Amino acid sequence: MSGDEQAWESLKVRVGELRDLRAVGGLLHWDENVWMPPGGAAARGRQKAVLARLRHELLVDPRLGEELAMAAASEDPLQRVAARNLGRLRDRAVKTPASLVTERALASSEAFAAWRQARATDDSALFARPLARMVDLARQESACIGVGDHPYDALLDGYDPGLTLASVQDLFVPLERGLVALLDAIRGATPIPAHPVALSAEDQRRVFLRVLPALGFDLGCGRLDTAPHPFCMAMAPGDVRLTTRYDDKDLMSGLLGTIHEGGHGMYEQGLPEALRGTTVDEAASTAMHEANSRLWENRIGRSPQFLGWLVGVLAEEIGLRVDLPALVGSCNRVEAGFIRVEADEVTYNLHILLRTRIEAALLNGDLSVDELPGAWDEQSVALLGVRPPRPALGYLQDVHWSQGLFGYFPSYTLGNLYAASLFRRLEELEPTVWERVVVGDFTPVLAFLRREVHAQGHRLDGEDLLARAAPGRHPVTDLLDSLRARQGALYGVS
Amino acid sequence: MSGDEQAWESLKVRVGELRDLRAVGGLLHWDENVWMPPGGAAARGRQKAVLARLRHELLVDPRLGEELAMAAASEDPLQRVAARNLGRLRDRAVKTPASLVTERALASSEAFAAWRQARATDDSALFARPLARMVDLARQESACIGVGDHPYDALLDGYDPGLTLASVQDLFVPLERGLVALLDAIRGATPIPAHPVALSAEDQRRVFLRVLPALGFDLGCGRLDTAPHPFCMAMAPGDVRLTTRYDDKDLMSGLLGTIHEGGHGMYEQGLPEALRGTTVDEAASTAMHEANSRLWENRIGRSPQFLGWLVGVLAEEIGLRVDLPALVGSCNRVEAGFIRVEADEVTYNLHILLRTRIEAALLNGDLSVDELPGAWDEQSVALLGVRPPRPALGYLQDVHWSQGLFGYFPSYTLGNLYAASLFRRLEELEPTVWERVVVGDFTPVLAFLRREVHAQGHRLDGEDLLARAAPGRHPVTDLLDSLRARQGALYGVS
Repeated sequence: MSGDEQAWESLKVRVGELRDLRAVGGLLHWDENVWMPPGGAAARGRQKAVLARLRHELLVDPRLGEELAMAAASEDPLQRVAARNLGRLRDRAVKTPASLVTERALASSEAFAAWRQARATDDSALFARPLARMVDLARQESACIGVGDHPYDALLDGYDPGLTLASVQDLFVPLERGLVALLDAIRGATPIPAHPVALSAEDQRRVFLRVLPALGFDLGCGRLDTAPHPFCMAMAPGDVRLTTRYDDKDLMSGLLGTIHEGGHGMYEQGLPEALRGTTVDEAASTAMHEANSRLWENRIGRSPQFLGWLVGVLAEEIGLRVDLPALVGSCNRVEAGFIRVEADEVTYNLHILLRTRIEAALLNGDLSVDELPGAWDEQSVALLGVRPPRPALGYLQDVHWSQGLFGYFPSYTLGNLYAASLFRRLEELEPTVWERVVVGDFTPVLAFLRREVHAQGHRLDGEDLLARAAPGRHPVTDLLDSLRARQGALYGVS
Repeated sequence: MSGDEQAWESLKVRVGELRDLRAVGGLLHWDENVWMPPGGAAARGRQKAVLARLRHELLVDPRLGEELAMAAASEDPLQRVAARNLGRLRDRAVKTPASLVTERALASSEAFAAWRQARATDDSALFARPLARMVDLARQESACIGVGDHPYDALLDGYDPGLTLASVQDLFVPLERGLVALLDAIRGATPIPAHPVALSAEDQRRVFLRVLPALGFDLGCGRLDTAPHPFCMAMAPGDVRLTTRYDDKDLMSGLLGTIHEGGHGMYEQGLPEALRGTTVDEAASTAMHEANSRLWENRIGRSPQFLGWLVGVLAEEIGLRVDLPALVGSCNRVEAGFIRVEADEVTYNLHILLRTRIEAALLNGDLSVDELPGAWDEQSVALLGVRPPRPALGYLQDVHWSQGLFGYFPSYTLGNLYAASLFRRLEELEPTVWERVVVGDFTPVLAFLRREVHAQGHRLDGEDLLARAAPGRHPVTDLLDSLRARQGALYGVS
């Protein structure tokens, strides 16, 4: 072997080990949320910390830097992709002082506890100081990374390389105009009532385990368990764990959540495992991951065609009769509320636009933590037309900031945008997709995603991959068109 | 801080990290056996390998060697204990070449697959070569470690520091005489019939979850799950996972196994967590661990007093009527069979003596792998009076050798020996123990073990801890006495 070949082989081993260590960290997180007894919490924190330290040491190893430099200069495109993908992670690790990493870990434990307490008691004062600390640490991190024009940019870049506040706003500003207009029109129409479907958790689980493999999630390479906050954790394409929860008064709440996590899971199961060690066997970006979950949840899971098939499954599997028009109305009705995770498909994105504004203002110092509660309520009125009666229904509702996850929220709406264009492209290529879905045949959907997204792994970043998979499409137009077509039609507005 | 103090603080951090990494490896193993989907196997192997590599690197770090040397020379007894305990692990890691570790990991994957196939098809030929490889690697490991007079010694030492074949035989030779004589006497008596208690897995689980906390196992700091081969995995004193299995034709099979694992689990829950970072928060030895599980399983779980309480629990909890004398007979009847894990309390130890002889002969080359099947059958006739009709019921029954676990078997019988003396000591100190057990009050048993064993952690090695906890007692005499008292009395022999 030449020196270059040796360096590449060595780099592949390191990439594989880093991925395996991340998987181990994922198992610790999954177990903590699913099975760990209460007494295990303190030890679990230490276990996560030692893994994080070892992973950080592997990332900042100077020999890794040398091998990445050689790969970056290689004629092999695969080596250059690996150098780009892992180089970014390494750059961030090298630029962030270990003391900041430790401080953030400690501060976020404290902030999480304070947030839980503040939310439970509706006492803003408890969270003010810990939140200010998290904002300050996020600003410090941004300064260390030093990417982009706005302090928010370096944080966005951590989830979606190259993403900036300006590029996000290019999408979010026109989206907001369209959403607000649609919401106004719907407000003037006759309200559509909710008809939740009551079902025992046991029967719901039977339904979920019938739906997931029908969509294409492989239960031989995955699981479905229960957790307070549903998530998907992938250890490898062969080991993808979904979690869900059961509300025995409302089947669709858990089912749409399960389909959402299943969308994440099918992406992970479809990644090109043969390219292990090259970083190509990873998802393209956080937003593209979210595009998969939202395509399945929103485009498929809320569609009259899917729901038509589901009504048959419910009758056959558990002898339950459900009225299809009422179910379609329930899954697509629009009503501005306080809580993001309970929002419908139209107002959901307004919740994200609100958070994006607030985060950007916190990061560049335009907004102080003291001013935050007032600013939140004001923006909520402006965007959604509702004023939260108490902070637990307002800025205290989400866990993200207590964990230092500034810059994550936009990927939820980016995911909806990407999903809209991907789905429009699929409809162009497979005009029969809906008549297949209505009989429970989801293969055209999965085959398209497998080919255009999953199998591509992380050769391209999310935005570039979207442009390749859905050439010439405009995500804002596509999302607004799809919402007008479905929710607008339901309410008889446009 | 002085240099010595700094070194000690640094050493404590390393000790804690090594313990946390071991816990993470434990979670990987637990999950693999309890929840992992089939597709996760390949990735799980890699995850375990990278953790093992990182742990090995931490152990052989020269700075750790320096800190251990300083601790060994300290006036603080705690530092000297840490130096002794971790020093042994480090010595073994330093002496074993990385290539041997890797080779053994690969060979054992192959040998495990070959063993499973050989056992399933009763085809000795499939396992001969992989087993010979494992024996050869064990001999190489023994030569690298270079402890003791017999090649077996270095392997025994890995489970119980200081243990040698000679010291094992000092106990096993007189034990064998006593066991063979007792078995002969029982053979001449009227056989006692088996009366298995049939019960659904669901009801069994209710019983197990009633019994475990009654004994003293804290379910807030632990769990009970299902696995094909029951085991106990402790991540920390606050997170101890037991596994069991359910045979719906035989309640006691799963219950005694659950009590056994619960005994391991209570030891782990009682370790002195405040001494984290000193190695004192670990069990004293493999044999002492087994002493805990066997004390609970055999001394308590098979006792007429425990079974009397259990009959009441079964009636109360699930309305099941069980005849106490029949149950006592079933749990204590003696019958020589082929399978170790199904053996009664008397013949179980003969199964271990058989394996100890075979392992010692394989290790010093007195016995070749080709001669092994014949030697096994011959020894089985000599010790147990039965000749396995096929290798799956003979030398192929246990997984240990395919995993390279030579030297582990003796700890099972050492555990029975230690348990006998610990229990006799407890009876001396607490003459009312049996009248407490019969009403379901197990606190005298747990309090004794907590004080004399668990809270002591690894200040003393197992043998020394036994001498301290049960001063002046003779384990062989105590075990034989207890078997004669229970099984001899049942059969009317002595």
